[in-house]
This record gives sequence, structure tokens and C-alpha cells, in this order.
Amino acid sequence: MTTKALVAAMLAAIPFTTALADEPITPIRPAQEINLARAELGKKLYFDPRLSRSGFISCNSCHNLSMGGTDNLKTSIGDHWNKGPINAPTVLNSSLNVAQFWDGRAADLKEQAGGPIANPGEMAFTHTLAVSLLESIPGYVDEFRLVYGEDGVDIDKVTDAIAEFEKTLVTPHSRFDKWLLGDKDALTSDEFAGYVLFKSSGCTACHNGAAAGGNTFQKMGIVEPYQSTSPAEGRSAVTGKDADRFNFKVPTLRNVEMTYPYFHDGEAETLTEAVDVMGRLQLGKKFSDQENAQIVAFLKTLTGDQPNFALPILPPSTDKTPLPHPFD
Amino acid sequence: MTTKALVAAMLAAIPFTTALADEPITPIRPAQEINLARAELGKKLYFDPRLSRSGFISCNSCHNLSMGGTDNLKTSIGDHWNKGPINAPTVLNSSLNVAQFWDGRAADLKEQAGGPIANPGEMAFTHTLAVSLLESIPGYVDEFRLVYGEDGVDIDKVTDAIAEFEKTLVTPHSRFDKWLLGDKDALTSDEFAGYVLFKSSGCTACHNGAAAGGNTFQKMGIVEPYQSTSPAEGRSAVTGKDADRFNFKVPTLRNVEMTYPYFHDGEAETLTEAVDVMGRLQLGKKFSDQENAQIVAFLKTLTGDQPNFALPILPPSTDKTPLPHPFD
Repeated sequence: MTTKALVAAMLAAIPFTTALADEPITPIRPAQEINLARAELGKKLYFDPRLSRSGFISCNSCHNLSMGGTDNLKTSIGDHWNKGPINAPTVLNSSLNVAQFWDGRAADLKEQAGGPIANPGEMAFTHTLAVSLLESIPGYVDEFRLVYGEDGVDIDKVTDAIAEFEKTLVTPHSRFDKWLLGDKDALTSDEFAGYVLFKSSGCTACHNGAAAGGNTFQKMGIVEPYQSTSPAEGRSAVTGKDADRFNFKVPTLRNVEMTYPYFHDGEAETLTEAVDVMGRLQLGKKFSDQENAQIVAFLKTLTGDQPNFALPILPPSTDKTPLPHPFD
Repeated sequence: MTTKALVAAMLAAIPFTTALADEPITPIRPAQEINLARAELGKKLYFDPRLSRSGFISCNSCHNLSMGGTDNLKTSIGDHWNKGPINAPTVLNSSLNVAQFWDGRAADLKEQAGGPIANPGEMAFTHTLAVSLLESIPGYVDEFRLVYGEDGVDIDKVTDAIAEFEKTLVTPHSRFDKWLLGDKDALTSDEFAGYVLFKSSGCTACHNGAAAGGNTFQKMGIVEPYQSTSPAEGRSAVTGKDADRFNFKVPTLRNVEMTYPYFHDGEAETLTEAVDVMGRLQLGKKFSDQENAQIVAFLKTLTGDQPNFALPILPPSTDKTPLPHPFD
């Protein structure tokens, strides 16, 4: 037995929780307890632009699963090319979030899914129109009946199915998770040094847990105020409390190499910039170029398995399906 | 051996060409002679919105492979929500077309692929900027090198790869093709009656071959002029000949159930309407409701295997990648 194989065998003998007990970030677990039928229906809905007024914008337009579950734009493009007020957060691992949206105004994925459909600046539809549209498509009517075991389409089922699909969008098997699980060769020395710095500098005070974030709200600009032209006020818009002004949900750092640009306003174009700003504003710490580069190197080890499924084929509209109105 | 099995065995013994000799429409053959490496690269490019100025519009935005290779809009939405002048034709089976675009202004798929990228009303980029962007992404630079066996990205390779991917987008195994190949139970009596009518009425004068169209240019409005507010003049825009005014490439009828709305201006919302207009304007024939319904039933048997592949994951941008400008 080689030394490496011996170490692997020893590590394999250590109980899962023990091996990870000392690390603030824990491995992403593969999707579990998924209602596959609902998730498959939800996948179609997620990709269906007919849930927008224009017939052009789907969930996947701004949470593009080819691109880290984001649109990689500073702020998103909505109906009639509307400029959105905030950076689209990644849908990847969003099931691990304490709440949804930057300000946490939706309790869970199901509640979130109804938001963009009815937002006049995003998909610009209504729940009533979305349901009417789906009811005109026999392929959907039949699938809803089979999946939910009863006749009828409603927004509750639509958002439930989308949420179930989104629960599948976890990204296990990143190099960092391999390291967490005992493969000490999974990180280079620079990446490991970056992780040590990340912990010792206090980043893990907020970026912790399986998603390395997403589980608390924190003020943007603790040591120094954050300068932004963004109208977003954060958590106070939900709680009405002035103390919650500029409190935002801590974004996950999983797949952060793919989810540029960064922050709620998308103002940080690169990881280097984001790490620098976070260090100064949140921790009162100016990272050296080398430290910054090491932390960035560590962050890039958080890219896990990306979604892997066949492009869904959508059931066609019928003569009864209401037409989209992209140019009205 | 059952009668059906006996018939199948007999048909299997008939040479391929013999069995089909009498039919004006021939079966779609599965994709052949594909350079798989180029096609895989082309698939990524096809789904990559970074080939547009906004970073939001990809080939798949208007030729959506979840929806019959179209956007199912009357005319397409381009950069800054520009209203396109023409209905997006399906990319499915487009390798079988005599030329590309409604007016045939591109000789082949490769020439076509460069058009929308640089069209100010569509993706609104330039070939130079698209190549610069790709050159900033190591994942692409490496893949181009491996695929083409030499260093360097250029628009010739970009459009070659996209075209190679598009060559894979054929849709064999429709019910009609099963019928053509000898399975006489593949069509219902109404569908078969529709096909007989389709032939006897003269539809196959233009809608013939493997794609049931796509292989000639024909005047829109032969018996009666076609009334349209569309600015599209058809083939004359390419040839400069007045005789080619309102000559358009005959659209394929493959997957026509999925490629609504119809005609170059997208004015026909349903197959029923399209069949009625075609009958009157092209053939001087008013189909009865029953005849129309039978032809529509036949047309719906032309839906073949839809694209079946994993959603591509795009290589991430880097700090050197030029940023998109969606709102300038």
C-alpha cells in the first residue's frame, strides 16, 4: 500500500463529522430527497420563456446554468431591456440559503420563484396569466396532473416545481471539498495558504457553512462605509428597521469564479477587487498583493460540479395559447 | 411470425431508395460525418451570450433548442429590445437548406453564423470584438487549439464550429418518417388523408425533399398577392432582380408544430391559418375545414427527435475579458 493510499484508507475510517469538525466550511452534499418528477417539470418551467410577458425571458435568462447560475452582468436585463436594480445572485446552492433574494424577502425557493415572473421590470407577467398560459398547453396540463396526482395548474404548483428543480442545483466535488474530505493533495500550497489567510483574517465569520455564505445577513461596510449608487437598501426594506439598512444576505462563495461581477450592485468586476474591498471595508485589513492572490487562488477551488442534464424540450403551445406581447 | 412482423421483414428487404422512390418527402437521416470536437466547441459558442454586445443574447436566444429551434415570436427581440424585421427561421435541419436566411443571402451555415453576431439589431457585436473576447478566456483558447490543431482564434473558426454544431441538429425518427420507412401504422387515417391531400393539392411542389422545404426559393403570393406590412423583400435584396421580389426560401415543414408563428413575417399564428393562406395564395385552393384539419394533422407527424444533449457549461471570463455593455 502506498503512503497516499494508506492515508486515504485512514481518513476513510474517520467518521464524516469528525473529519470536518475543525473547519468552518463544510462539504456540499449531493442533492437528496428530491421529488424527481416535480424537479423534471420544474426544469422545463425554469427554461420556459413563455412565463414572461414577452415570451423571451425565462428563469435561465438571468440565472443561466451555463454560466454559474448567473447572467454575469452588473445588474440584469428585464422586460423591454429594463435595467435591473441589483446583481442577479446565483441559483446554484441557493437551497442552502437562509432566505432568498439579497434582502431575504422570500423565505424559501418556492416563494422566490414567483417573484421575477410578476416583477414588471423582470419577466413582467402575472401569476394568473402564467397559469392560464400553462393551462392552454396539453403537454404541461398532463405533466402537472401526473406529477401532482390531481387536475389543475396553479401558481403554487408552478413555484413548487421550480423550487424542486432548484434544489437539485448543488455543486459538490469541488477541489476544496476533496481537501475537506481528506485529500490533502487537492489544494496547491498557494491555495492552502489562501484558505489559512481566509480563516485567520476573519472571512469565515460570515462565509461559513456548506455554501461558504448564504446563512446570515451582514452589513455591507462595517469598518468603512460602502460607497454605491445602487438604490438597494438591503434588509431594512423587509424589516422596516433602520438598523437593517445595508444589511444584505452574505453571498455564497461556492463557484465564485463563475459568478462575477460581485456584490449586490455588481460593482466589483474581479475577485481581486472583491477580496480587496471586503478586506478593507469588512475587516479593516489591507491584503498585500500576494495575500490577495492566495485568497483568490483558494476561492477558485470552490468551483464544484456544474449542472449536468439534458437541455429540456418544452411542450409546444396550441392555437388556444395566449400570444406573447414583446413590443406592446 | 405475425402479419405485421412479416410486412416489416419484407420492407426491410427492400433497398432504402426503392422503398421511398414514390414519395416527394424523404426521411431525415441522422447526423453523419460530424467533426465532434468542432461541434462540441460550437455548442458552447451557440449558447454563449458573450458573443453579443450586451452579454445577454446568444444564438440560442432566438433559435431556442428547447422550442423547435425558434423563439416562437412573430419577429425576434435583439439588442436593446430591438424589434427584428423578420421571423427567426428554425435552426433544426438547417443544414439541409439550399442557402441560409429567408432571402438566402448566406451560402451555408458557416456564413450565416457570422451574421447575427455583427447585426446591430441582433447581437450587435463585431467579429473583431467577439474574437478578442474569446481570446481572453483560457478555456476557449485551449479548446480552439486542441480542436483546430493550431494556435489562435478567428471568426472563421468561430463560425465553422457553430456550423458544425448546427449540422448535428437534424430531427430524424418523426412518425411520418417511420411511415416512409415502412411502418404503415405510424399514421392515423386522418394524418394519412392529410398527406394524400398535401400531395394531390400541389403542396409538395415546394415542400419536398428531406426537409419538406428549404431547397428552393418561391414567390410568396402566386395566385393572390400576399398582403404584409413587413419590410422584407426576399430574394431580390440579394440578386437585385425585380423578378425576385417577394421570393423567399421555402421554409422546412419539419417540426412545424413547434416553429409557430409562420411565414417570413410571422403573421400566421396557427397551422390552420398557415395552411389556409398557403392554399389560397399559392395554389388557388380553398381547403374545407375537414381538409385543413387533415393537413394540419399530417404536418404534426413531421416532428422528429429534438436535440438531446447536456446543457453546455461555458468557460468563465477572466480579469482580462472585456465587459459587456448592455445599457450603453
